[in-house]
Amino acid sequence: MSKIELTVEEIKQYDREFNLHSWSKQKGLNPIAVSKSEGIYFWDYEGKKYFDMSSQLVNMNIGHGNKKVIEAIKEQAEKLAFIAPSFAVESRSKLARKIINIAPDNMQKVFFTNGGADANENAIKIARMFTGRNKIFSRYRSYHGSSFGAGNLTGEPRRYPLEPGIPGFVKFFDPYIYRAGINFKSEEEASKYYVNMLREQILYEGPFNVAAIVLETVTGSNGVIIPPKGYLKGIREICNEFGIMMICDEVMTGWGRTGKWFAVENWDVKPDIITFAKGVTCGYVPIGGVIVSKEIAEFFDDRVLLCGLTYSGHPLACAAGCATIDVYEEEGLIENAQKMGGILGELLEGLKAKHTSVGDVRYIGLFSSIELVKDKESRETLVPYGKDPEGIMGKIIGLLKERGFSTYSHENIIIVAPPLIINKEELIEAMDIMDEVLDIVDKTML
Amino acid sequence: MSKIELTVEEIKQYDREFNLHSWSKQKGLNPIAVSKSEGIYFWDYEGKKYFDMSSQLVNMNIGHGNKKVIEAIKEQAEKLAFIAPSFAVESRSKLARKIINIAPDNMQKVFFTNGGADANENAIKIARMFTGRNKIFSRYRSYHGSSFGAGNLTGEPRRYPLEPGIPGFVKFFDPYIYRAGINFKSEEEASKYYVNMLREQILYEGPFNVAAIVLETVTGSNGVIIPPKGYLKGIREICNEFGIMMICDEVMTGWGRTGKWFAVENWDVKPDIITFAKGVTCGYVPIGGVIVSKEIAEFFDDRVLLCGLTYSGHPLACAAGCATIDVYEEEGLIENAQKMGGILGELLEGLKAKHTSVGDVRYIGLFSSIELVKDKESRETLVPYGKDPEGIMGKIIGLLKERGFSTYSHENIIIVAPPLIINKEELIEAMDIMDEVLDIVDKTML
Repeated sequence: MSKIELTVEEIKQYDREFNLHSWSKQKGLNPIAVSKSEGIYFWDYEGKKYFDMSSQLVNMNIGHGNKKVIEAIKEQAEKLAFIAPSFAVESRSKLARKIINIAPDNMQKVFFTNGGADANENAIKIARMFTGRNKIFSRYRSYHGSSFGAGNLTGEPRRYPLEPGIPGFVKFFDPYIYRAGINFKSEEEASKYYVNMLREQILYEGPFNVAAIVLETVTGSNGVIIPPKGYLKGIREICNEFGIMMICDEVMTGWGRTGKWFAVENWDVKPDIITFAKGVTCGYVPIGGVIVSKEIAEFFDDRVLLCGLTYSGHPLACAAGCATIDVYEEEGLIENAQKMGGILGELLEGLKAKHTSVGDVRYIGLFSSIELVKDKESRETLVPYGKDPEGIMGKIIGLLKERGFSTYSHENIIIVAPPLIINKEELIEAMDIMDEVLDIVDKTML
Repeated sequence: MSKIELTVEEIKQYDREFNLHSWSKQKGLNPIAVSKSEGIYFWDYEGKKYFDMSSQLVNMNIGHGNKKVIEAIKEQAEKLAFIAPSFAVESRSKLARKIINIAPDNMQKVFFTNGGADANENAIKIARMFTGRNKIFSRYRSYHGSSFGAGNLTGEPRRYPLEPGIPGFVKFFDPYIYRAGINFKSEEEASKYYVNMLREQILYEGPFNVAAIVLETVTGSNGVIIPPKGYLKGIREICNEFGIMMICDEVMTGWGRTGKWFAVENWDVKPDIITFAKGVTCGYVPIGGVIVSKEIAEFFDDRVLLCGLTYSGHPLACAAGCATIDVYEEEGLIENAQKMGGILGELLEGLKAKHTSVGDVRYIGLFSSIELVKDKESRETLVPYGKDPEGIMGKIIGLLKERGFSTYSHENIIIVAPPLIINKEELIEAMDIMDEVLDIVDKTML
């Protein structure tokens, strides 16, 4: 099988004929067929090279084609590709231990899943079992996955097809300062405002019915919204006050993306539960998981953990995870994300100063976004919320792609999140393309 | 990393210390540490060999350590382990085409997921989008996964932690003839009874509100309940009458398990949607998916498919899937499942005739169950529904395991579902162990 290669025409034809693509109308799709990838680049069949400036879906942190991870996959495939979760297996034991060593020091055990969505699904279940309560708080500007539980956590339009929703899921506002309509004097003041508003909402909902507050530590696809100083600490205090579980979704932000192993470290906060996926193997093999505190772990010593799935703790994926963590450590990628993050921040501020279409830039480590506006003063979004009737954002992403800059957009926001192995020269070269495209936006799209 | 191997003590220690195990109290767990696996066997670190008589979780259809699949994984890992679902990629195009070639001829496209649960999640979403309706019917004796959507489909106790449930999910009864309390004269009569009851229930719920009827083609973990002749055809007719989507969950039953590529072929029925996972790669790399009919596929030509996940159509998993399908074909495993299924059926009938504890045996292809009772006449279950206070079923599974027969139980039922590569001698040798253990059950546990 693997010897008979398809032509690029066949790849595209079978893709069109037999595949359903995510979040799209299927007619008229003309996806790039990817022939190979390496480091921060991938190539199409015409030999055109693309900067992978979103690390695919913010998962390819160590870059494409890492030899060490490939070797680990090959070895484990030979040794033991799969055994059911009820057994003990070397690569799973090893990965769980590595994760707990890296995670905040209140963390004790890992429940492995297949990806980020089912990590969030299981986190909610665990919080409900542990607290014996029902209600789950999450935010409007959020994406936690598109299965029923994760999709009901999600606040943005990708939630709608899952409605009528699951009883007990409550939404609150994000600390989206750029659009708050309030002139906060400091980050601390903004935090106080948002935390107080949440506390008030919890009082109305009945604090003793609330099992968990779920939030992306840094809001991801919905705009890289960075919590102001004191915000997460304030959430932690509400959770302590009412016995609510604090669940941080680190599916995007974990594994060095923000310049720390987990983003919570940036604000020195310890959640009760952390969910992860993506960067743990960078997607080389699918896996995700839920990290729980010592208290939660001990709760299930004598109580049945009512969670399970066939591929939980998949041996092949766990071996890839072990090797990936080694790569982060050996190549100093957490440090590089911090360092390159500083440079990326400067480049983004330059773009904001220069381009009339850039309303705001937000960045932490190598996780960043460019928010496009019709008008800097009024901050009117380049496209209305929840739609883009003229396909403007698609056109912008297309202009970038034509020039070899691959990323994606969400609402009026462009995500910039390259692999953590990127260097200064590459970053400057790529962001020059962004500069060029923003010139076109300034001149023709406002 | 991969060079420094853990001792078996360390594997068990880290497992205990850092892993959360599915569906269990964590204290006192003492999982077998698996050192290697091949064909229908796996071994622990003491060198003890086990017949894998459940194919792990009814997924290891082609057996452990298949060279062809391992080779495909190694090749694809070198070539392109991961690229995001928005691109076109060879292994994904290839696998989608292979699946559509195998699937019933009304099927047109595949949406890939990470496993069975999220396949079912997405199937429901697709049915709701396509019909514009809300209600979803599924059965009490069923397991469809444990995320919120799949878990709300599920009828058995593993659903409870997901309640209060999602609005619009309705349960109906299975054609569980052995416990129907009715003396049906024929399979056809039983089918008529159950189909009529379902039709009546749909009338009460409002047929024009019903998006889908979801069912395991053959009920899996809940007892290998085989649809009587005419049952699936009757369901298909109800679906046609009211414009309801028929969704067959073939996560366990697909890929040769019942002696056909998909179990629906046994009754010559064409559902609108089929979900799959497990056997497509046999778990070598995690993947699942939703197969949709031509009509549904075309519906999404001009409408946005509101489904998506990072690892959808994972290139490494797709390469493993292509190789796995080749193995089924080249090794004639579908035929072998039929042939060995005949022998297994005879062996099971022998056990039923011999043992006072065996109330019923049910089998199709290499998918079978042994239902244990306190009394053949009254059919009283060996353990009460939803609990096993004295851990009797665990003891029986332990007795089997001690003798090198690995499988699992559910309620009062033991699952027997070996890899499809098993031969007659192996089957007889393994089932002799079952015979021996059932002797102990007869003598000491009734």
